[in-house]
Amino acid sequence: MREAVVISIGNELLNGFTINSNLRIISKELTLAGYKVRRGLVVRDDTSEIAWALGIGTEHDLVVTTGGLGPTFDDITSRSLAEFLGVPLEENSEARGYLDDWYRKIGLPFTQERLKMAMMPRGSEALRNPVGAAPGILTRFNDCTIISLPGVPAENDGIIHSIRSRLTVRGWVNLERVYSVPGALESKLADVVNRTMKQMDGKVYIKSHPMNSESGNPGVILQITASGSDRNTVEGDLVRTVELLRKLLNNKETKLDLFPIVEDGEPG
Amino acid sequence: MREAVVISIGNELLNGFTINSNLRIISKELTLAGYKVRRGLVVRDDTSEIAWALGIGTEHDLVVTTGGLGPTFDDITSRSLAEFLGVPLEENSEARGYLDDWYRKIGLPFTQERLKMAMMPRGSEALRNPVGAAPGILTRFNDCTIISLPGVPAENDGIIHSIRSRLTVRGWVNLERVYSVPGALESKLADVVNRTMKQMDGKVYIKSHPMNSESGNPGVILQITASGSDRNTVEGDLVRTVELLRKLLNNKETKLDLFPIVEDGEPG
Repeated sequence: MREAVVISIGNELLNGFTINSNLRIISKELTLAGYKVRRGLVVRDDTSEIAWALGIGTEHDLVVTTGGLGPTFDDITSRSLAEFLGVPLEENSEARGYLDDWYRKIGLPFTQERLKMAMMPRGSEALRNPVGAAPGILTRFNDCTIISLPGVPAENDGIIHSIRSRLTVRGWVNLERVYSVPGALESKLADVVNRTMKQMDGKVYIKSHPMNSESGNPGVILQITASGSDRNTVEGDLVRTVELLRKLLNNKETKLDLFPIVEDGEPG
Repeated sequence: MREAVVISIGNELLNGFTINSNLRIISKELTLAGYKVRRGLVVRDDTSEIAWALGIGTEHDLVVTTGGLGPTFDDITSRSLAEFLGVPLEENSEARGYLDDWYRKIGLPFTQERLKMAMMPRGSEALRNPVGAAPGILTRFNDCTIISLPGVPAENDGIIHSIRSRLTVRGWVNLERVYSVPGALESKLADVVNRTMKQMDGKVYIKSHPMNSESGNPGVILQITASGSDRNTVEGDLVRTVELLRKLLNNKETKLDLFPIVEDGEPG
């Protein structure tokens, strides 16, 4: 199975200012594309920290970085990436073209600070930003593909959605189904979840998430995931898992039922 | 300056199911307590991955983990922590007492799955959970303090708030002020931010965050942070920074102004 690492760059993620929403979006896209996201690393705006994270990430098949591609002094992802790769940072003509288009469209001049966003490691492919200025960067290190996205959420999401078809891992599918079990306590479901996973012989993974605290008005969300090379087999495993869970939950004592939230496994 | 690492544990954080909101809350608490949060690590429900993260984190002064303390089979933080520390996992009598209280309060029996939440590495201090079942764990490795919190956001937040006074680093203060600059483009502010930071001689750090994309209705959020051993000096540096920014922004050409969002640096 192909593995990915997501690197989130920015002091604001480590001082409580900003929530790391980009990790969720990137992880969702990569999971649906067929990757296992192995780790997330969150680092400060610091070249040596970014190099540390790239060193760990590039031991896997794919690295996606988010943040640090903007026009300000502490946007240092592109420079750090060039240093890590051992290639010069230079004006990328594709990126320059995208930026020219963007600033013409919004009627602003091309300043020195804005030119900074066209500077990329030699050999990079610039990824057009459909909703903002800073283009993304696609480059490689040994057998690893590195994709760098801007940190502004709309721009992060816009670029990764736009390259969805290129990310797809051929011959591998990850699917999920999500259900709510109103009235259930997580500590009570634990045994049912264990027995179901054992009966499914490790083919599915069931994660339970309590909806409320164990007092008050409880409920559990069950996220069922399965992976494999054949979509029909994976879908069949999910269906069989839900049937098993339903049988174990809806007995004389507990009378619990599953209600679908997501059954097709497509991104929300 | 004392450094901390936050470890977020859970597959759901790496497959797009759940947003890592706990990292923001923990980082905010630690920053206000006087720590620099050096890195965030997000790992799967896997003992060797947790060990990897603990190995990196415990090179610093404080590690806070979140997630994996619940009653289900894949809640393996406590066991992984015991293995990492090289001590046995055993029933913690404080934790057992807290759990007894909790289940008595909500009128439920104490099952095997629930007892699991009382199992902690030998020598741990149990941290009472004010809003749920699973207690937190406080333990040490060499010179590093390790705090483990449950992943349910209300429980994560409840426990870390409850130990706020114990986290405070004596003799060190981190303060922040946050302003909006309506009408500003980040790429245009970049130069003003650079000049202000240079004039302040590295005593403050200014991070700009675009409020919208550079088209449409722009604006920038400026987050100004400063640290030091004397609160009055740090506050004075922040005030002087805001005066400088205001002077540079509000000239004949740009006519921009700063509007306060946070001036006291207390957590939101």
